[in-house]
Amino acid sequence: MKGFGMISVNNVGWIEAPKPVAGPMDAIQKPLAVAPCSSDTHVSHGGAGPLENRILGHESVGEVVEVGSAVKNFKPGDKVIVNCVTPDWEQPLLQDGFDNNAHDLFPTSSFKFVCQKDGVFAEYYHVNNADGNLFLMPEDISIEDALMTTDMMSTGFHAVENAEIKYGDNVVVFGIGPVGLMAVAGAALAGAGKIYAIGTRPNCAALAREYGANEIISYKEGDVVEQILDLNHGQVDKVLIAGGNGQSFVDALKLTRANGIISNVNFLDPTDTISFQAPLWGLGMANVTFKSGFCPGGARRIERLVRLIQADRVHPGKLLNKKFEGFDKIEDAFKLMDEKPKDLIKPYVLI
Amino acid sequence: MKGFGMISVNNVGWIEAPKPVAGPMDAIQKPLAVAPCSSDTHVSHGGAGPLENRILGHESVGEVVEVGSAVKNFKPGDKVIVNCVTPDWEQPLLQDGFDNNAHDLFPTSSFKFVCQKDGVFAEYYHVNNADGNLFLMPEDISIEDALMTTDMMSTGFHAVENAEIKYGDNVVVFGIGPVGLMAVAGAALAGAGKIYAIGTRPNCAALAREYGANEIISYKEGDVVEQILDLNHGQVDKVLIAGGNGQSFVDALKLTRANGIISNVNFLDPTDTISFQAPLWGLGMANVTFKSGFCPGGARRIERLVRLIQADRVHPGKLLNKKFEGFDKIEDAFKLMDEKPKDLIKPYVLI
Amino acid sequence: MKGFGMISVNNVGWIEAPKPVAGPMDAIQKPLAVAPCSSDTHVSHGGAGPLENRILGHESVGEVVEVGSAVKNFKPGDKVIVNCVTPDWEQPLLQDGFDNNAHDLFPTSSFKFVCQKDGVFAEYYHVNNADGNLFLMPEDISIEDALMTTDMMSTGFHAVENAEIKYGDNVVVFGIGPVGLMAVAGAALAGAGKIYAIGTRPNCAALAREYGANEIISYKEGDVVEQILDLNHGQVDKVLIAGGNGQSFVDALKLTRANGIISNVNFLDPTDTISFQAPLWGLGMANVTFKSGFCPGGARRIERLVRLIQADRVHPGKLLNKKFEGFDKIEDAFKLMDEKPKDLIKPYVLI
Amino acid sequence: MKGFGMISVNNVGWIEAPKPVAGPMDAIQKPLAVAPCSSDTHVSHGGAGPLENRILGHESVGEVVEVGSAVKNFKPGDKVIVNCVTPDWEQPLLQDGFDNNAHDLFPTSSFKFVCQKDGVFAEYYHVNNADGNLFLMPEDISIEDALMTTDMMSTGFHAVENAEIKYGDNVVVFGIGPVGLMAVAGAALAGAGKIYAIGTRPNCAALAREYGANEIISYKEGDVVEQILDLNHGQVDKVLIAGGNGQSFVDALKLTRANGIISNVNFLDPTDTISFQAPLWGLGMANVTFKSGFCPGGARRIERLVRLIQADRVHPGKLLNKKFEGFDKIEDAFKLMDEKPKDLIKPYVLI
Repeated sequence: MKGFGMISVNNVGWIEAPKPVAGPMDAIQKPLAVAPCSSDTHVSHGGAGPLENRILGHESVGEVVEVGSAVKNFKPGDKVIVNCVTPDWEQPLLQDGFDNNAHDLFPTSSFKFVCQKDGVFAEYYHVNNADGNLFLMPEDISIEDALMTTDMMSTGFHAVENAEIKYGDNVVVFGIGPVGLMAVAGAALAGAGKIYAIGTRPNCAALAREYGANEIISYKEGDVVEQILDLNHGQVDKVLIAGGNGQSFVDALKLTRANGIISNVNFLDPTDTISFQAPLWGLGMANVTFKSGFCPGGARRIERLVRLIQADRVHPGKLLNKKFEGFDKIEDAFKLMDEKPKDLIKPYVLI
Repeated sequence: MKGFGMISVNNVGWIEAPKPVAGPMDAIQKPLAVAPCSSDTHVSHGGAGPLENRILGHESVGEVVEVGSAVKNFKPGDKVIVNCVTPDWEQPLLQDGFDNNAHDLFPTSSFKFVCQKDGVFAEYYHVNNADGNLFLMPEDISIEDALMTTDMMSTGFHAVENAEIKYGDNVVVFGIGPVGLMAVAGAALAGAGKIYAIGTRPNCAALAREYGANEIISYKEGDVVEQILDLNHGQVDKVLIAGGNGQSFVDALKLTRANGIISNVNFLDPTDTISFQAPLWGLGMANVTFKSGFCPGGARRIERLVRLIQADRVHPGKLLNKKFEGFDKIEDAFKLMDEKPKDLIKPYVLI
Repeated sequence: MKGFGMISVNNVGWIEAPKPVAGPMDAIQKPLAVAPCSSDTHVSHGGAGPLENRILGHESVGEVVEVGSAVKNFKPGDKVIVNCVTPDWEQPLLQDGFDNNAHDLFPTSSFKFVCQKDGVFAEYYHVNNADGNLFLMPEDISIEDALMTTDMMSTGFHAVENAEIKYGDNVVVFGIGPVGLMAVAGAALAGAGKIYAIGTRPNCAALAREYGANEIISYKEGDVVEQILDLNHGQVDKVLIAGGNGQSFVDALKLTRANGIISNVNFLDPTDTISFQAPLWGLGMANVTFKSGFCPGGARRIERLVRLIQADRVHPGKLLNKKFEGFDKIEDAFKLMDEKPKDLIKPYVLI
Repeated sequence: MKGFGMISVNNVGWIEAPKPVAGPMDAIQKPLAVAPCSSDTHVSHGGAGPLENRILGHESVGEVVEVGSAVKNFKPGDKVIVNCVTPDWEQPLLQDGFDNNAHDLFPTSSFKFVCQKDGVFAEYYHVNNADGNLFLMPEDISIEDALMTTDMMSTGFHAVENAEIKYGDNVVVFGIGPVGLMAVAGAALAGAGKIYAIGTRPNCAALAREYGANEIISYKEGDVVEQILDLNHGQVDKVLIAGGNGQSFVDALKLTRANGIISNVNFLDPTDTISFQAPLWGLGMANVTFKSGFCPGGARRIERLVRLIQADRVHPGKLLNKKFEGFDKIEDAFKLMDEKPKDLIKPYVLI
């Protein structure tokens, strides 16, 4: 079968690969819609090491074409939303309530696509533990909304969950790319008070406001920390980091009040260093917490996000402002994502 | 001074009382806006025992006219929002994180107005622990929104807090009076999926939809439990009780899935009995939790609710669909509340 | 193969049954040690309906004799501790953090032994989802301690978990049978202050003191509620119910302070009714919470309990004060459990 | 009156100061027992800036000699335990559930002794908000146990609270000075599995074992991280930092499993830097949380700790292995604390 991926570092293209095979608990899907993500482009440039002939892609809605003998909930022909994180649910370490770090417990080990096996930009793709990781596509939501639950919404909302937002918390969101935009929407749906979103792209800024941001803060207007401290008359309760680098944590500390939480969902670069002086952290006495994490996996996660769409609380499909049609267009969509023109929020491909 | 209250059970009218005096930590206010509540009318009919010459009222925005020697945060002339629950913050039992049950820990002992002393329907009224219980009225919110934070919004949102709503929880709200409407709004702002609100009054139903209810369920259309089980294709995750009686808990149990929470903020009548058979509670094995509680007190509570208004997330002032003007109109407003005509949501008086 | 169970209601004996077969994710064990439980005897008297030819038993340590093709963590010859609750971990509803109520979400649906299939009093027994539900027996703990993790310790400690015990909470435990004794031990290991344990059997009372109870309360000395209110100079913070009936909840309400929690792990009888008047529950304003639940399933649960044994914090094997040896002695052990002589805490059989 | 303190940096001695005066909510005490702490000696060397003529000391049991007009719970002659953290409970920011950072919310602003006013090494000392901050000394505990609740036990146990320890968590404690020893005891009383305590002093090591440590790890035996990874067969669940410096966080990250918590109660030096590379933090994807904080204030905190002593769960007075008698001996005790001879755990003075 054919798939689009990295032939080698900095060299993407179409790859010929054997059709995947389903073990007893697995299922095979063909894609109905996929979206490239900046982590796909990052990997293509060597971000996960010198992979070769690896099919990329982890955000998808698909149709089941084959199921293993032990799969109970699905059958060929079912249309399904596929969480980009697919834990081996039978492994005991997941029973502690953390699903994104599987049985051998290296971080993100439940993230199988791209890093551990071929991804979803293929004629057929494999999902482990199908009963636990596929969610039957409901008829009353759009395929765009469905597609955006698989990573962007789940990740952005996870930043909010880790921040333990309470009614009236004032919140800063670093970054208004797709994940940051979902963090904004998630914060509004968790009872945040004022939301300050940091970013500059006009399309993203407009959507941030629509999703609930009260102020858009741009570094072009001056120091972002000072701007926010000024607008908020002091520090905020929670900071969500959905973009930036090691330095972002220093800015976050300056912005976070005693007893606040800094919640990161930004995939840091291996070369990043987090470094701050003790007084910024209240000499370790200020009850300022750092949390960080990877988006939760599995079918139930998708179900909960889908319910928010069904109840008309949020529409993550608005992130998708560039549509392609046809399996072959995966290449164009991927390259657009890699270029990231200024007016792009997120591209996708209907197949 | 003059105040409106109960002369005796079932006999309300204007009362002459001495102007209250401020102790070292206290403050005296004159009212700028007040709203009668069904608990005021309930008390007037003997709900808190055979009180005599007790001034009623506990929802108010006021102006400080006098402060005690130890008060640091306020001075005469300050316009303030007054939480209807005013704990004695210096008492150790409150340090456990529960503020609505004060030092001697009888339930609602932090609720001082009406039950323990004269209320706010007076030329002047007393607030204990002023630094901890008054909140400076911000200039950027309406007096109607401010007034509705003091009890209705705080109580309705407390139902949601106790229900520990997570993204995508489907929720039932019993009652769409002012507190139930605020429970609807609070659930939407906590990330609820579908919200089913039970009630019949057209004005309330319309506002429930505006606040986020997806379905309005009326007993006139059949058994409410069956209607909801049918619409939701099974039980819901959380039930919020903001109206009803002992029987409501039986209905709530029928509606709540294993591992769900039933959260009550309805003031039960002393004659109510809660009674259910063990199988309805999964023989005690179903992880179905009952929570209940009284609205949190203090200034910080009001600040957090005010921030939601300032961030344009909700406008509780919409509850107030009947306005009176002038101190003397407290009587008319109270009587209207007592009659509760079908189109009334909640009356208030601007002074 | 041979097994001991109920031939029909009130008629126990040895049953001939086919050896169980392992599906892809399953494993077959032969027992090394088993313990009868009062729920086994309860079922034998019709407690789970008119079962016929059903092998009983759910507490066991065993040796793996066969594994399915998809099982990764175990192989024949492994000695394993078997949680009495064995969820189908791949089912999405479990991903919400509740494992004891499986995919179709009827309460206790993850409890498979006895209720849904043959139990462990057999030459061979079946465990679903072996990777997630078996725990490799460590060499540094006794088989008695290991055996008591599978239900008694897990259930008693779950009462404590649901009660959210904080440092210095004063606690009442209803019942000092094996589960109540474990609730006492669990409360002490969760930072409880004074522990008041209600019961009368001398052996149980002595072990309760050893596990951390400060006072043993007997109904023979007068009303238990009054005794405790007197000793504690008022109500306690938390009540754990590990024995009793519907009336216990009324007593628990009398004993629980505003803002307290009542946590039940007692399997109620279908004929039990829970009934109390509103004033006992603070008219719904006292923030008194009812929680209840079934013991958590799976391998990780066992691992966490085993670590407490390895760290020498508690030894649940002390519950086992009557030892039998040999497979055939399951009958004697069962009948002793059914008779419950006054000096018995819990019997077991080494095979 | 006379007090012992710092005349200037690195120059301690007896100071003549006016007797403190009680405002309406305050109380004045004379000390019955006091203990010097390493933060007192740290301040004497300039740790809180160039203070002059400041009386030191913040751990005390005292006798009330005067109360303000608004104090309700105490009267002269009452023997009281004085939390070293004395919040202004009436200030709204404390109503968010954090008491150690008062109304102006700079970290530790509820820590008044020494930093903001004279301490307890005086003939008389002042306590703000007496109702909320004094706890009546019970007759059934020793003065040594009582004295050690005021800071050491409260701080060490706070490390455990922030670590959210669950049954069976394996735990590392950095430091076995008095606070680290209390963290060990607190972890055992929170259900920790194996506890690895890092330190070398023989008296401290012996007491660590008595309080529940399973292994004492010394840097003299090799790299502490490697020793623990080896003994624990991998990373632990939680790390409590009660000693060390910025580098400790790097070690803690190496020791903490994905989904673990690092909890700091060590007062960092203003010159400390916390610095680590992103891969150590799982590139921000490993759900490893940093928490830190200051010990909670107030009377209820002391009550909860006292209950653990009354229930015979722990005896913090064992920390006090060097007794002095007489007010004048405060000087000797202080100097011993400053020298910290190898066999010292903690000195105190009975007055």
